[in-house]
Amino acid sequence: MATLKDIEMAAAINFLTAFAFFVAFAFLRLQPINDRVYFPKWYLKGLRSSPSRSGAVVGRFVNLDFRAYLRFLKWMPAALQMPEPELIDHAGLDSAVYLRIYFVGLKIFVPIAFLAFAIIVPVNWTNGTLERSNLTYSDIDKLSISNIPLGSLRFWTHLVMAYVFTFWTCYVLKKEYEIVASMRLHFLASEKRRPDQFTVLVRNVPPDPDESVNELVEHFFLVNHPEHYFTHQVVYNANKLSDLVKEKKKIQNRLDYYQLKYSRNQSKRPFSKTGFLGLCGDKVDAIDFYASKIEKLSEEIASEKEKIMNNPKHIMPAAFVSFKTRWGAAVCAQTQQSRNPTIWLTEWAPEPRDVFWDNLAIPYVSLTIRRLIIAVAFFFLTFFFMIPIAFVQTLANIEGIEKALPFLKPIIELKGIKSFIQGFLPGIALKIFLIFLPTILMIMSKFEGFISISFLERRSATRYYIFQFINVFLGSIITGTAFQQLNNFIHQSANDIPKTIGVSIPMKATFFITYIMVDGWAGVAGEILRLKPLVIYHIRNFFLVKTEKDREEAMDPGTLGFNTGEPQIQLYFLLGLVYAVVTPVLLPFIIVFFGLAYVVYRHQIINVYNQEYESAAAFWPDVHGRIIVALVVSQLLLMGLLSTKEAAQSTPLLIALPVLTIWFHIFCKGRYEPAFVKYPLQEAMMKDTLERAKEPNLNLKGFLENAYIHPVFVEEDDSENHAATEEEDKEPKLIPTKRQSRRNTPLASKHSGSLSSLLPEATEEH
Amino acid sequence: MATLKDIEMAAAINFLTAFAFFVAFAFLRLQPINDRVYFPKWYLKGLRSSPSRSGAVVGRFVNLDFRAYLRFLKWMPAALQMPEPELIDHAGLDSAVYLRIYFVGLKIFVPIAFLAFAIIVPVNWTNGTLERSNLTYSDIDKLSISNIPLGSLRFWTHLVMAYVFTFWTCYVLKKEYEIVASMRLHFLASEKRRPDQFTVLVRNVPPDPDESVNELVEHFFLVNHPEHYFTHQVVYNANKLSDLVKEKKKIQNRLDYYQLKYSRNQSKRPFSKTGFLGLCGDKVDAIDFYASKIEKLSEEIASEKEKIMNNPKHIMPAAFVSFKTRWGAAVCAQTQQSRNPTIWLTEWAPEPRDVFWDNLAIPYVSLTIRRLIIAVAFFFLTFFFMIPIAFVQTLANIEGIEKALPFLKPIIELKGIKSFIQGFLPGIALKIFLIFLPTILMIMSKFEGFISISFLERRSATRYYIFQFINVFLGSIITGTAFQQLNNFIHQSANDIPKTIGVSIPMKATFFITYIMVDGWAGVAGEILRLKPLVIYHIRNFFLVKTEKDREEAMDPGTLGFNTGEPQIQLYFLLGLVYAVVTPVLLPFIIVFFGLAYVVYRHQIINVYNQEYESAAAFWPDVHGRIIVALVVSQLLLMGLLSTKEAAQSTPLLIALPVLTIWFHIFCKGRYEPAFVKYPLQEAMMKDTLERAKEPNLNLKGFLENAYIHPVFVEEDDSENHAATEEEDKEPKLIPTKRQSRRNTPLASKHSGSLSSLLPEATEEH
Repeated sequence: MATLKDIEMAAAINFLTAFAFFVAFAFLRLQPINDRVYFPKWYLKGLRSSPSRSGAVVGRFVNLDFRAYLRFLKWMPAALQMPEPELIDHAGLDSAVYLRIYFVGLKIFVPIAFLAFAIIVPVNWTNGTLERSNLTYSDIDKLSISNIPLGSLRFWTHLVMAYVFTFWTCYVLKKEYEIVASMRLHFLASEKRRPDQFTVLVRNVPPDPDESVNELVEHFFLVNHPEHYFTHQVVYNANKLSDLVKEKKKIQNRLDYYQLKYSRNQSKRPFSKTGFLGLCGDKVDAIDFYASKIEKLSEEIASEKEKIMNNPKHIMPAAFVSFKTRWGAAVCAQTQQSRNPTIWLTEWAPEPRDVFWDNLAIPYVSLTIRRLIIAVAFFFLTFFFMIPIAFVQTLANIEGIEKALPFLKPIIELKGIKSFIQGFLPGIALKIFLIFLPTILMIMSKFEGFISISFLERRSATRYYIFQFINVFLGSIITGTAFQQLNNFIHQSANDIPKTIGVSIPMKATFFITYIMVDGWAGVAGEILRLKPLVIYHIRNFFLVKTEKDREEAMDPGTLGFNTGEPQIQLYFLLGLVYAVVTPVLLPFIIVFFGLAYVVYRHQIINVYNQEYESAAAFWPDVHGRIIVALVVSQLLLMGLLSTKEAAQSTPLLIALPVLTIWFHIFCKGRYEPAFVKYPLQEAMMKDTLERAKEPNLNLKGFLENAYIHPVFVEEDDSENHAATEEEDKEPKLIPTKRQSRRNTPLASKHSGSLSSLLPEATEEH
Repeated sequence: MATLKDIEMAAAINFLTAFAFFVAFAFLRLQPINDRVYFPKWYLKGLRSSPSRSGAVVGRFVNLDFRAYLRFLKWMPAALQMPEPELIDHAGLDSAVYLRIYFVGLKIFVPIAFLAFAIIVPVNWTNGTLERSNLTYSDIDKLSISNIPLGSLRFWTHLVMAYVFTFWTCYVLKKEYEIVASMRLHFLASEKRRPDQFTVLVRNVPPDPDESVNELVEHFFLVNHPEHYFTHQVVYNANKLSDLVKEKKKIQNRLDYYQLKYSRNQSKRPFSKTGFLGLCGDKVDAIDFYASKIEKLSEEIASEKEKIMNNPKHIMPAAFVSFKTRWGAAVCAQTQQSRNPTIWLTEWAPEPRDVFWDNLAIPYVSLTIRRLIIAVAFFFLTFFFMIPIAFVQTLANIEGIEKALPFLKPIIELKGIKSFIQGFLPGIALKIFLIFLPTILMIMSKFEGFISISFLERRSATRYYIFQFINVFLGSIITGTAFQQLNNFIHQSANDIPKTIGVSIPMKATFFITYIMVDGWAGVAGEILRLKPLVIYHIRNFFLVKTEKDREEAMDPGTLGFNTGEPQIQLYFLLGLVYAVVTPVLLPFIIVFFGLAYVVYRHQIINVYNQEYESAAAFWPDVHGRIIVALVVSQLLLMGLLSTKEAAQSTPLLIALPVLTIWFHIFCKGRYEPAFVKYPLQEAMMKDTLERAKEPNLNLKGFLENAYIHPVFVEEDDSENHAATEEEDKEPKLIPTKRQSRRNTPLASKHSGSLSSLLPEATEEH
């Protein structure tokens, strides 16, 4: 077990690592050549353009102003300066509320840590149980609950503190739910007109022998919403088309590369091979070859487009139905349309850029079957993921490699390399799996058939949290694979499970402290350095970039990554709440994590990330629910721990805690969750009335008719004749609002590429 | 353990008991004097009136036509003859669908029994395990799974049959859900105009300093539903008034009694004492005394009424809001109104007679707290109900009684009586508790704050089922109180619980067979005899009845009693499914129960019961859900049982069963449940359009404006000046429909008494 010294040492190392990252970041961000890596958000918003061409050539790449280096931590206060309303304007509500999660961490744990150090630590420290015992123990353990003798009356302190901590956490959570709900409602209320406010997604349109989907939808809504129905757009199955467009883009990239190569060195036409990866096959003139390929693809795309438009088979039984008023849309989204509840399913349309187009046509029965399959698959993934990895590990030994690739034998047999590989190989399969885990979970969510990217991410986050809870939290406490744990738990009584875990908890405190420092501190500091985007940007910049537009494309601002980031934070909530009573010395490390992460992510949100969608903090109920789960888990484990301490009289008093906590959750769910799921008619009516008064002659038709077109159509038009500029102009700029930012934030999504998003700046420059 | 002989004996006894009940019923029902006990429904519908005054006096009381007695089971085919659509017309959809539960029992268990006897019984019988063993065993056990040797391959039969039974049950359940859902939709669609189709109940109207609730509701809905809002009725807090009215009715009863006494014996004015129960106090002239008391109460009622009408304090923050169209009401009921989801709560208004008025004004926070309290209370009730009963039992011993009531000592000391009391006393507390349990559960549901009687009954049924499951099913299998079981389960592993129960199951088969015969067969036969209403009717008839109207009131047709009846049926589903694979010999007993109960309850529904409300089979999702629970329980217990039989290879194959069953439940929930919870806009629009076309000049105002008045107001008007006749006439009889029955079914509820319900007949007779 680690002593206090060891922990201090580890803390120093990790602190220095983090510090080194910050210094590196401070240096790199000041170089103009990296400007697009560290400030892409400002470029996307059109508020920053490439460094001016005038001035010294060197100055365009390297910052020579040495004064700038002296204030290398200046970005920290700068990140904190922007007030929250401005932040919402600048980066959207999702990002602002995401930051609040870290803030909630600080709000919960700073007072808890203060109380714990003032009360629990002295109570623990002034015992001599560990000294008298023959056990080996560390200084950390002297501060923990392990130092209290069996059956001591001092356990009442822990009991009372468990109540205090629970009430404080619930109080903070309730306040926060209230604030976030009102932020969301305010955000939705003050937003300018958006197509999704008027639009409802209809799925599972029943097949009809006499009418096309188009006619059917129109008739159905004309009959059932006669005063409110306005127009609709059917959904085309453009998956093949979008593959073609992707292919064309890839080839275009290659063509650009060769053209750039040729333009730099005009003496020699570049050549390429037609076969696999350009390694084999006939040698051809690269520029001609790819140009002709693009021409062919363009033709194919045009014919595919024609086919989609004319063949009713490509129309999916789904449509985006728009209404004359927000009230009409709110009504349609919240009600059941048909007596058969599996057809004419209506729900709020996601933002156009948030739609996950591929899933729009999945029928109801298929959806339930998919959910069953994924539930079973996720169960196996969580509990049995070690089996294939162990299998790969047995295959991937030195002998196997030597057999498969005999020519590597002499190299492998070198002593240094051999031992390195032997130490390295077994871990690599696991590491690769863990890196790909979020992607695997995302694919599972996509398969399940959800129709908005924001929902996909929320679903993946839930699964990732469960995986981490079982394999990281429980897996570290009770060593052994998840399956072994499951097997143990099945054979243990419901009463013994919290005991088994509870008893091991104090012993694992030092492990988790180290984990927090490595994964939390250094991880967060690494995030700000953006090493991967930095490298990729410079590679692209060198090989592909011809125009400003290409340079924009080479930027990869990235997003918050809710599906991986949030479960990580939740792990810290869980650790903090579990250890608050047991080993309070862990709390400062968690507080440092939350503080550091808050500053870093605030900086990144302001300067880097470009959110793909805006869900108006729809994820908050998930966040709230998971903190409640952590709270209940911490209470159950404390009960288990205390029941082994012969403090039997206190255990029954703890039973009330989980009951009250769960009740609190139910209360909050009823009180606040509807604000995240439903759209009140009162609000809709207010906005409608206001709009009618302000703009009596509004041309809603122009605004809505092309809002929900598959991005592949928009993109194609865009890249060919910049039709999007026109579209952007169509948006009536009628409401005088201070919230200019949103107008400038382009409706770009991963799927539509970032082409259309560059238009504002492009127009400014040319 | 009981042998096959014992079972045959018990069956014979119970069969004879049931037969005796039927004979007694056949005799009693033919006596004209009992006509109103056994055919009250026909009286209430106005299709039958008291036996004519002409003819022999004896003939009015006793049936002298001996031929009638010969065909004493004639009611059975008669009960089965009425086709289902007519039954729905006659008794409502609730009753018709309630009968289908028994029918589902037959549909599930007849084929299962057939298969089990054809396959499982021979497989079990042809083993000699029990013969070779030294255990005592019965013939029943030879037919059960206990007769198969450990690790035998024959367990594959049971495994396969478990799959077959599960699929068959799910198939029947799915078909049935489909049928009931379409029956419900058809019923709702073909119903004539009812106020609740246009009306939404709004609760938690926020307090406003400037406006009264009345104005506030009007303004809110005029603003937010401008095209649809029609009118509204605020809810008055008339609890005190309704107490006064009840009091007046009681006194009226006494007055009637004395007046009747006086009219029979004119020589002597009856006297009464003013004190407790008329046993002590001053002696007064009874008729004058009660007449003056009634006068005083009438005045109080009038002043209270005035107070309620004029004092805004008596207006509760709730209102029944009516809309111009069904579409408008459907929209309002299904959407959220305000940005604060705890105010302006809207939901479908229950039928006027289904409203539980006392609960209309409970605010949101109070509701969640009440739910927590009741959840905790129900937990203690289920697991610790034995504690107070044991306490009462220790108090209620002979010595205690002798001490408390010394004058009883000589009587108690008589030997025969003493031993009788000693044998009887300990059981009586438990018996009384079990008799009052449904009432206790109903009070708990009322406290929880639900607003319709139908929902209260459904909620109580759920609780009663849980109580029976734990205390009857589990309690009989693992002997011991529920708390001991809970304690055992907490200390057992999740894996061992199904094992512990599963192992005991085959041994308890004979007990449950006896239970089915006593509780099921004899209980159902007893139901048809209606002993309690028979006695009460004759007492009332003798003491209170002056007019035909009084005689109507003396009738107590009763209702189906969903809150007690359905959980009982569910217990039989549970037993049947659990024993289908284990001891199939139990199945015929269950089939007899279902068959008998089906006939008996069909007869009662046609001739006796008068439903208080019509929920259009809203209870079906509960019924379906509980059968699914029984199915999953049976699968888990079979898994537990097989895992002790060293048939380890088959256990993993059984895991798929509960997973598939739960998935099937989720599928059904999504597919059919909305039909029971929501009201599709398409239907609403269709009915609106049809109505507009047929009756363009409909006076909806007159129809809706008094629909939702607290019954106490209606009743008072009614008993004083028969205003209800007028109201009844207001109902426009415009749609030519065959469904005359509903028009005649009066909208009587327990609260409004059955006064208004007598009007049609009263008019016919006078």
